[in-house]
Amino acid sequence: MSDSFAHSFRVRYGECDPQGIVFNANYVAYFDLAMTELWREAFGSYAVMEERGVDMVVAEVNAQFRGSARFDDLVTLGAAIERLGATGMTTRLELRREEELLVEGRIRHVFVDAESWEKTEIPKWVREGLEPYLDV
Amino acid sequence: MSDSFAHSFRVRYGECDPQGIVFNANYVAYFDLAMTELWREAFGSYAVMEERGVDMVVAEVNAQFRGSARFDDLVTLGAAIERLGATGMTTRLELRREEELLVEGRIRHVFVDAESWEKTEIPKWVREGLEPYLDV
Amino acid sequence: MSDSFAHSFRVRYGECDPQGIVFNANYVAYFDLAMTELWREAFGSYAVMEERGVDMVVAEVNAQFRGSARFDDLVTLGAAIERLGATGMTTRLELRREEELLVEGRIRHVFVDAESWEKTEIPKWVREGLEPYLDV
Amino acid sequence: MSDSFAHSFRVRYGECDPQGIVFNANYVAYFDLAMTELWREAFGSYAVMEERGVDMVVAEVNAQFRGSARFDDLVTLGAAIERLGATGMTTRLELRREEELLVEGRIRHVFVDAESWEKTEIPKWVREGLEPYLDV
Repeated sequence: MSDSFAHSFRVRYGECDPQGIVFNANYVAYFDLAMTELWREAFGSYAVMEERGVDMVVAEVNAQFRGSARFDDLVTLGAAIERLGATGMTTRLELRREEELLVEGRIRHVFVDAESWEKTEIPKWVREGLEPYLDV
Repeated sequence: MSDSFAHSFRVRYGECDPQGIVFNANYVAYFDLAMTELWREAFGSYAVMEERGVDMVVAEVNAQFRGSARFDDLVTLGAAIERLGATGMTTRLELRREEELLVEGRIRHVFVDAESWEKTEIPKWVREGLEPYLDV
Repeated sequence: MSDSFAHSFRVRYGECDPQGIVFNANYVAYFDLAMTELWREAFGSYAVMEERGVDMVVAEVNAQFRGSARFDDLVTLGAAIERLGATGMTTRLELRREEELLVEGRIRHVFVDAESWEKTEIPKWVREGLEPYLDV
Repeated sequence: MSDSFAHSFRVRYGECDPQGIVFNANYVAYFDLAMTELWREAFGSYAVMEERGVDMVVAEVNAQFRGSARFDDLVTLGAAIERLGATGMTTRLELRREEELLVEGRIRHVFVDAESWEKTEIPKWVREGLEPYLDV
């Protein structure tokens, strides 16, 4: 994966379980965090999109666990948009500790009208803003 | 504490931390759960209150840790209303595993108008519904 | 899916996000909860397996979102084991609110030695205990 | 409170509840995060202390809510040690968004032997490392 986007952060204690590693559901929460930060880089903030009448919902998420992150690990979540369709988008995510791949995943979002929550076409300005993160 | 109200549940794996015990912030989440269940017993559900135009916000929370709950422990959270003022309410909470007291806490709520979020008097019907849980 | 196993519970307030629905990562935490309860039904508890020297790690998780659960919803998580291999197991999960399918998912576990965390064969007694939950 | 220590971070989406604000238990998780970061500044990391045979457990936590943090808010958690006793320590915490005080709290820790979990005296090197954060 080309490093279209990357966000680094530390694993918090309360995110880890009795096995001493990040609880599996929390990796999915990390994916969400990556999207927020990708949006900040692309558009200034996630709120910008909502203010302009568009929102996203998660349609599908997948995560494959290759290794484990531990408390206080400095990890990096890379993200690249794999598919930018008419109304949906698929993002590939890779969580690494230094060079070691810990988790890889995919998250599929559907764009919706922020009022009606009906599926809506991805606006041109969103499409343009996301172009630098495309890895197809 | 007289057992005005009690709710039993099992500790979930993801709520525990690398020490093998419930992460301290999650006990505060348990307090919130107890309030939901107390409301269900008193009024049918929490939503009933919101539908009638009243909501609550947490003003203060306190927790003292005497022991630790572990994964899969069956615990019971007792609750009793200690003070029912004009616009606020203080509830005492005790988390036990069988007879052993693990955590005791207090949570102070303020009643607000569900629209304006302005502080509001506790309605008469709420006051009456909460009477069985008073322990003063 | 035949209802090999089902566990019902209520959505907690703190599990919901500003859209008013369960935050997507928390559905994955629900999957973990279903496994704990399936283990309780099959073996008495999850701890039994660890005491006998075997543990499981999550290798992959997938969730498809069809609908949304909201605060205080009474939901049911059905689970059926789709594949019981030599060292791994795939479980299909379906979260419903009454008849409505909200989320469907799959979780793949790998069995490991509880000491070395090396991949290990699923013991015969585990295999037998899980047979009633097989849906192949 | 003199700004003995401060750590800034952004509120994550999944930490917020249907009221659109940080779920109350998550502020307590933030307190824990502040302690981790204070330890990093004072000792290099939290692990250093455990490696030297000492650990801490939370004995009591208190939080007073003055305002609310929202998704994506950049907030700062200030911390100052109010009391450094023989075996225990009380830390005052203040969460702010720019100048606005949102939450103030106190957390009391007890030092324990990392093996036996018995209460233990705060070692001299810990006491010296924490001195810059004392605000008495």
